[in-house]
Amino acid sequence: MRVILVGSGNVATHVALALHAAGIVVAQVWSKHFHNAENLAHKVQAKAIADFSELDKDADFCIISIKDDAIAETVKELASFKGILLHTAGAVSLDIFGSNSKNVGVLYPLQTFSVAKNVNFHSIPICIEATNEETLKSIRKLAVKLSENVVEVSSEKRKILHLAAVFACNFTNHLYTLSSDLLRANDLSFDMIRPLILETAEKVQLALPNQVQTGPAIRNDEQTLKNHEELLLKQPQLLNIYRTLSESIKKTKK
Amino acid sequence: MRVILVGSGNVATHVALALHAAGIVVAQVWSKHFHNAENLAHKVQAKAIADFSELDKDADFCIISIKDDAIAETVKELASFKGILLHTAGAVSLDIFGSNSKNVGVLYPLQTFSVAKNVNFHSIPICIEATNEETLKSIRKLAVKLSENVVEVSSEKRKILHLAAVFACNFTNHLYTLSSDLLRANDLSFDMIRPLILETAEKVQLALPNQVQTGPAIRNDEQTLKNHEELLLKQPQLLNIYRTLSESIKKTKK
Repeated sequence: MRVILVGSGNVATHVALALHAAGIVVAQVWSKHFHNAENLAHKVQAKAIADFSELDKDADFCIISIKDDAIAETVKELASFKGILLHTAGAVSLDIFGSNSKNVGVLYPLQTFSVAKNVNFHSIPICIEATNEETLKSIRKLAVKLSENVVEVSSEKRKILHLAAVFACNFTNHLYTLSSDLLRANDLSFDMIRPLILETAEKVQLALPNQVQTGPAIRNDEQTLKNHEELLLKQPQLLNIYRTLSESIKKTKK
Repeated sequence: MRVILVGSGNVATHVALALHAAGIVVAQVWSKHFHNAENLAHKVQAKAIADFSELDKDADFCIISIKDDAIAETVKELASFKGILLHTAGAVSLDIFGSNSKNVGVLYPLQTFSVAKNVNFHSIPICIEATNEETLKSIRKLAVKLSENVVEVSSEKRKILHLAAVFACNFTNHLYTLSSDLLRANDLSFDMIRPLILETAEKVQLALPNQVQTGPAIRNDEQTLKNHEELLLKQPQLLNIYRTLSESIKKTKK
């Protein structure tokens, strides 16, 4: 199997590394910035290309892993590609390839990627989708080389998954940021909170989160809620988040 | 060293287990409900007591680990105790013991505890505080047997830590719940999100969270934000949380 990567960001990088590690040939890497294509190509023994005219049209897969709103235009530029065209975006429908497309599909790894941190791809859920059974079969063949956790998911359900991931990952990380800001403003180290963050995530690996909710809001500990609000009086945005989430927790109890 | 535990909830249980594992004698356990005292006492080879008149007044420490708003009254009932009286509450000041108290202090383990899950106490930050140096020294002697991470923290700073913990743990767990609710309503398994949750927490064990923020809000991906809001139109409370947190993320970029 030979694969072309279009993109060089966090997702493209980790997909390329996982493909390479699985013994799949990453033939070419394209990026809007040629320098980035060269960087990634170097890591996976691929050829960096600056222009789609250089594209190896006979590769098995071309994986588009770029900003969501740039996908549609890039698909047009790749019209001459003969293999299976994939994108990796959680929030973009299969329809983006046009209604008459045959060899197209989605390979969405449900994980948060940063270039700086390695990820064990084997346990990552990979959501796949295609316009027909044959193409889906080929995509599955590729995906199972990357992960043990390959699931067929429709565009509609994938959008829900992506939204659920925003709550569980992006918003969660932002709460870590707010927490670290609070600590820093009071000369306290974020190290004090790191074990707590890890334990909170580990707890729900077996349990469901609503079974392990702790804290003043779920206990209806009005005095502590009031004390916390007083500490936040000079930070109206933070106070608003505190109140909004505490109210939401209280409602889960009812 | 001999310790008495007042309380039998999540914190009391894990503190008692950690003391017992460290070879410290847990002499007695009291609880509002005698049955619970018996349960916990059994686990740590202690004696359950139903009434404070049975209290071993000569033990080295008496650790009060009960609901915040019940601490003040319980302190009064323990007036005859001769050893060091401690509480374990993040949000309760040292002043709760009264202004003339000598042998009193705080031992606050900064972690989220559920009875059902074991916790490695050794890496948990334990915040200690006392009214005088000698008492602090004794408390430190006890605390270092439980954890390698013992820090002296004032009541004022402990309150900030507790508030930061609410953001990083309680609110985070609630976002997991909202995410799991979204998935369940769409016949998707929470298992799909579990690896993402763990990775999000592991990422900030070395990095700072504002360095690893991902998702549509930090990318200013307006189309995806709009699509997500449309998916939440029929759930105004969830929509409000989505907008509030997305706006807050955008502000961190500026």
